[in-house]
Amino acid sequence: MSMNGAEAFVATLRACGVDTCFANPGTSEMQLVAAVDRQDGMRAVLGLFEGVVTGAADGYARMAGKPAVTLLHLGPGLANGLANLHNARRAASPVINMVGDHATYHLHYNAPLTSDAAGVARPMSDWVRVAHSPRDLAQAGAEAHLAAMTYPGQVATVIVPADHAWSEGSAPVAPRVLPASPRAPAEAVTEAAEALRHAEGPCALFLGGRALRADALDLAGRIAAATGAKLVAETFPARVERGAGRVAVERLPYFPEQGADYLAAYRTIVFCGCEPPVAFFAYPGKPSELAPPEARLVRLASLREDAHAALADLAAVLEAPTEPAGRAVRAVPELADPERLDPLSIGAVVADLMPDNAIVTDEGLTASATLYAATAGAAPHDWLVITGGAIGQGLPLATGAAVACPDRRVIALQADGSGLYTCQALWTMARERLDVTVIVLNNASYAILNIELMRVGVRNAGPKALSMLSLADPVPDWCSLARGFGMGSEQVRDVSSLRAALAGALSRKGPFLIEAML
Amino acid sequence: MSMNGAEAFVATLRACGVDTCFANPGTSEMQLVAAVDRQDGMRAVLGLFEGVVTGAADGYARMAGKPAVTLLHLGPGLANGLANLHNARRAASPVINMVGDHATYHLHYNAPLTSDAAGVARPMSDWVRVAHSPRDLAQAGAEAHLAAMTYPGQVATVIVPADHAWSEGSAPVAPRVLPASPRAPAEAVTEAAEALRHAEGPCALFLGGRALRADALDLAGRIAAATGAKLVAETFPARVERGAGRVAVERLPYFPEQGADYLAAYRTIVFCGCEPPVAFFAYPGKPSELAPPEARLVRLASLREDAHAALADLAAVLEAPTEPAGRAVRAVPELADPERLDPLSIGAVVADLMPDNAIVTDEGLTASATLYAATAGAAPHDWLVITGGAIGQGLPLATGAAVACPDRRVIALQADGSGLYTCQALWTMARERLDVTVIVLNNASYAILNIELMRVGVRNAGPKALSMLSLADPVPDWCSLARGFGMGSEQVRDVSSLRAALAGALSRKGPFLIEAML
Repeated sequence: MSMNGAEAFVATLRACGVDTCFANPGTSEMQLVAAVDRQDGMRAVLGLFEGVVTGAADGYARMAGKPAVTLLHLGPGLANGLANLHNARRAASPVINMVGDHATYHLHYNAPLTSDAAGVARPMSDWVRVAHSPRDLAQAGAEAHLAAMTYPGQVATVIVPADHAWSEGSAPVAPRVLPASPRAPAEAVTEAAEALRHAEGPCALFLGGRALRADALDLAGRIAAATGAKLVAETFPARVERGAGRVAVERLPYFPEQGADYLAAYRTIVFCGCEPPVAFFAYPGKPSELAPPEARLVRLASLREDAHAALADLAAVLEAPTEPAGRAVRAVPELADPERLDPLSIGAVVADLMPDNAIVTDEGLTASATLYAATAGAAPHDWLVITGGAIGQGLPLATGAAVACPDRRVIALQADGSGLYTCQALWTMARERLDVTVIVLNNASYAILNIELMRVGVRNAGPKALSMLSLADPVPDWCSLARGFGMGSEQVRDVSSLRAALAGALSRKGPFLIEAML
Repeated sequence: MSMNGAEAFVATLRACGVDTCFANPGTSEMQLVAAVDRQDGMRAVLGLFEGVVTGAADGYARMAGKPAVTLLHLGPGLANGLANLHNARRAASPVINMVGDHATYHLHYNAPLTSDAAGVARPMSDWVRVAHSPRDLAQAGAEAHLAAMTYPGQVATVIVPADHAWSEGSAPVAPRVLPASPRAPAEAVTEAAEALRHAEGPCALFLGGRALRADALDLAGRIAAATGAKLVAETFPARVERGAGRVAVERLPYFPEQGADYLAAYRTIVFCGCEPPVAFFAYPGKPSELAPPEARLVRLASLREDAHAALADLAAVLEAPTEPAGRAVRAVPELADPERLDPLSIGAVVADLMPDNAIVTDEGLTASATLYAATAGAAPHDWLVITGGAIGQGLPLATGAAVACPDRRVIALQADGSGLYTCQALWTMARERLDVTVIVLNNASYAILNIELMRVGVRNAGPKALSMLSLADPVPDWCSLARGFGMGSEQVRDVSSLRAALAGALSRKGPFLIEAML
């Protein structure tokens, strides 16, 4: 059966196991829209803005362990999705982008929407491919899937010329065989074992990427039981499986002085699933590297090497005990002031009410560390963090996670300033009736920037500077925004109200927004 | 006096005449925030999203005739602003972007926000420069101003490493002397005159860019009086000065068949300020070029040559009469159904109530042609159109135009689907108390895409395809969105209500949103 290029491309992706398309199409993608429409087993989810689409693909990938495909409108549409592709790439999430472009013969006319789509894609993609023909489009789909699934995951972008999409004579291509994930070298395991066994002074196991899943943390906990190593997670992990009964791991603090202080005591640090930590930003006269200069740094497995396997090998070499150290116990923080709404009390309420197997997305920024610590003893859950610092990722991430896991509850902990970048995600939650409860922490401020302004040495900031860091005048009203996007909402100003609102939201189907006024 | 790089950079821009900064800064831009703060005569306007910032810079530039400077946060922040930079570039608007980046010595650590900022900038910039040192940063500012002001205007991007911004030892640089705008060759004027004088069959003057300002249109009208040439504007002009008493110009229709039909009769077409028209998108089996193949095409002046001077030269060679042909007369369309709300009646009400010297931003999409035609006889005004097809430009454009022209009323005619991309612009209008009246044409649909789906030959579209083109379920509620962003609003369903709401909004200071339900 002859297919046009778009149909063969979409059929190839479906054969590769892709079953979800987050879409924001335009005219040049109409054949792709039609192909998704006709493809059995391919769900289409519309986003009102491309940053919603790409952030949702990231959230989906983190939870599903496989890529969704995005549908984006030429270079400018892709551009609107780049920031969350940056985050997805930093999360090592598998994502496939299909980006329409003008018909090949039309490009040289320089029509108004003409741009260098591949050039737009490159800075935020691990892999970019421009299709050469209708037949090649299907081939590009299979290759994109292979690229996206390259351990632990990559952002793969296919540029789809409109004439390749609409021309007949193509056919689906068989999925590529996915290679096994690369193993860390045996020498790395031996060196890590030796370093931990003979550590002079405190030692730590610094974990990132796939090393933060429950099974890998269980191995890490066994290694800790064998060696006394402290378990530390990277500051912005893509996904931590945590909560009561699971091996707990603290996150390295965000500010570089605090991060360096945290690590200062360790003389041996073994890294698995990530690289040694560096300052998020540079500051005048401050070092970029956070591990103490005198510490011995040992790479057990990089981000691109199988973290679980490396931990299993290390546990075996160490003959680690079966029972891991450091399981979290069920606990909820006590509050000094039982009604004061702040990150700690919000975290405590969430920890108390969170159902089993929930998914938490965390774009809490200045509140994030407190929220994370307060929920250490909650029911078992997944905790997803903004990975690349490109704010506006939380609400789309929650959207995608909910699409990936329709049987699980999603709680989105969202700072106000960053939430406004992609507030359109609320509409997709409403349309798809996703079980997402959004808790907006409204402090009417880019709070982090007020801190950073001082940190970089700016003194006596004037009203003009402060106006650039404030969301007051007017304070955005999130309940009205939720209503505008078709979602129910409630504003709360004390802990009892938050508790009642959250309990209510978690007891109902569909999305709900709680605006917590700090 | 020693300055740090940021201060010298901003002082240089100020010396070049830049007095407005549209900002969405992050940590790496704190020294730039402080420098803007301290710089006398430099206004700072915060946008909640970068697409608002860059679109506002475009609107500002179209009205002010000089660049504002944007302040953007590293590669991902710039990425969020690219779509409207694409539009700005297509409008030939002068824009200077200052984009923070990590300290040079910090880049190689690959911290989470690290990206190829220059790579992100390139596809949507005419000119990109990475500063080399604190002193060079000021130099880059002067060069960026020169690049931005290169006739008729360009997008110039400076990447500002944080350590260059914070290091002392820099000093402002004197503004570059701006060159005169390039003149079209004398031969082009001679050829155009000869072609129009001896045209066999109907002839047309096809105008774009600066040829659509009132003084240039006056010249074009005189040429029309001398030669009988029809005046036609490009489909998506950056700025048309029009209305009662000015020389009127129709816009070439959007759909390529209609555009080709419109031009079919002309045997001679002289272009000024633009290139010959091409289809916005390609369609299977349809030609890309819209001028009839047998027509004689003559380039009087390209987009980059002085359109006004070329028209003046042509009028002189033709010894054109003093009085132009085709002045618009004051008129408002009559309505067959006096209460039915549709693009024609909205256009009629706007034409009737628009005050002298208003600015209209038009992202009406499917409604745009009707709105434009209906307002031909309104009071004199400027009409600004989305130029590059990257939707989400209308509300930011209105924001920037209002900042540039505080004494003029701005009316934003806004399609619903495209308005949702950058709805955060409403907040900036509210904060800055801008005299903008937004009229949202709410049809709960990407109406253009439903048309395009059929046009590219897709038949029997299923519910999945239609769901990707519909904004229903839930229909966004713009009045609530306006409230969420701090702006007053009213929903209208008939012409009388629209008339009352618009009259009220135009009589008050500050912004207001009218949601017109179609």
